[in-house]
Amino acid sequence: MESSIQESIFEQAKRWVYQAGNLIKEQLHQDYKIETKSNANDLVTAVDKHIEQFFAEKIRTYYPDHLLLGEEGFGDHITHLNQTIWIIDPIDGTMNFVHQKRHFAISIGIYDHGVGEIGIIYNVMDDVLYTALRGKGAFKNEAKLSPLPRDVQLESSIIAMNSSLACQNRRVNEKKIQQLIKDSRGTRSYGSAALEFAFVAEGILDGYITMRLSPWDFAGGMVILHEVNGVTRQANGQPVQLLENNTIIACNPSLYQKLLDEYVELK
Amino acid sequence: MESSIQESIFEQAKRWVYQAGNLIKEQLHQDYKIETKSNANDLVTAVDKHIEQFFAEKIRTYYPDHLLLGEEGFGDHITHLNQTIWIIDPIDGTMNFVHQKRHFAISIGIYDHGVGEIGIIYNVMDDVLYTALRGKGAFKNEAKLSPLPRDVQLESSIIAMNSSLACQNRRVNEKKIQQLIKDSRGTRSYGSAALEFAFVAEGILDGYITMRLSPWDFAGGMVILHEVNGVTRQANGQPVQLLENNTIIACNPSLYQKLLDEYVELK
Repeated sequence: MESSIQESIFEQAKRWVYQAGNLIKEQLHQDYKIETKSNANDLVTAVDKHIEQFFAEKIRTYYPDHLLLGEEGFGDHITHLNQTIWIIDPIDGTMNFVHQKRHFAISIGIYDHGVGEIGIIYNVMDDVLYTALRGKGAFKNEAKLSPLPRDVQLESSIIAMNSSLACQNRRVNEKKIQQLIKDSRGTRSYGSAALEFAFVAEGILDGYITMRLSPWDFAGGMVILHEVNGVTRQANGQPVQLLENNTIIACNPSLYQKLLDEYVELK
Repeated sequence: MESSIQESIFEQAKRWVYQAGNLIKEQLHQDYKIETKSNANDLVTAVDKHIEQFFAEKIRTYYPDHLLLGEEGFGDHITHLNQTIWIIDPIDGTMNFVHQKRHFAISIGIYDHGVGEIGIIYNVMDDVLYTALRGKGAFKNEAKLSPLPRDVQLESSIIAMNSSLACQNRRVNEKKIQQLIKDSRGTRSYGSAALEFAFVAEGILDGYITMRLSPWDFAGGMVILHEVNGVTRQANGQPVQLLENNTIIACNPSLYQKLLDEYVELK
């Protein structure tokens, strides 16, 4: 993608993300009047749909030749990568949205012929915007993120994962995950894949392991992480498939091979 | 403790907490110049000591008959509860402090003859202050926290715990913890006991389980949680021992008995 086009799309996308963030805040605020848990579940579905529709209408108006991949039904049926595709999660971290009314994010990855050009993750309630343009670095708000250090040791690393990976399960050898929990400095779980990607890119987490992510969960984060030399691969070491669900290892480059070889063994 | 005295000590403590928060921020900011991981480890020790000393000097000047219980060596040797005791953690979440430069807190619990009178947890980098005075409710900044709902079901609950509890260990039956991970809606791990207590009090987590906390890790949180009808007990169901390390279940009142009976089995 030509640089000036990339930047122009980015500026447009960023404006829409802030607008979408305000819409979400307004709807959360209105909901405080009629607060129940079941209502909160309805709310997240409604907001998810509303925000995806918002982006769908914007994209079709301003970029009629672009496609949208999303979860909520306003996107396109996409079977190949030979086009420009917006991959959007209006609310990444829906359980956090419902229970916490924060710690969730809008996530956008824009891919041109399979190449990640633009990544945006917006922590709505904290008003923190992570962004990246391919070849131009990654940012947290106005601050450029440093390339990840290449000398990180596992024993001084913090790894994000859901605790269910340490339990008996069908996807991954839990014994090796338990060993990883022992061998690393610590683990964290924040409940938003997009924010966990952003934290790895920021260097405040050193890795993130998960057994099932949809494209909209990782598309934005993968572009951002790539710009700081981070690694995103399937948990079997294969490249991520952009249009499918994937297992994911996203991490500091110095940890990837060790995680793959010694700790993440798929069943 | 008389109400006017309680309030006067609270106002004083709150001022010191904000001052201590500024000192921590200044030291973090200076450290950006000379950034390495080992340096960060030295930094947290230095800041921990500095801030505990700051509180020790204030308390001895303004409340010479009060005692201080802390980790860093500026406190008193305390063997019984028949006095007014400040229990302070200058930086709760030291690993977060080192790796993330956020997600840590100053924690203070003030106990008079064993009764929790004042609780303060200050999320320094987010500038969020959780407070409680016994009998007068709990607050997040200026907003009063609602009493916790009494109809929470485990299957719609979010529980905070370290993933190591699901691994083979000497303290707790990991099989039952794994069942808890399956039966609850989800788990989280934030790496700061004080903040995890605060989140339970706020109702954005429904429980927090941990196998070893020192008094300064839970003293502030226990007062705050109590004011919203939350439960804090040892993991064997006994009352918490204020001067000792404890296993801890801190939770919504509707979950306590079920967690104790069905999921947390000490070895």
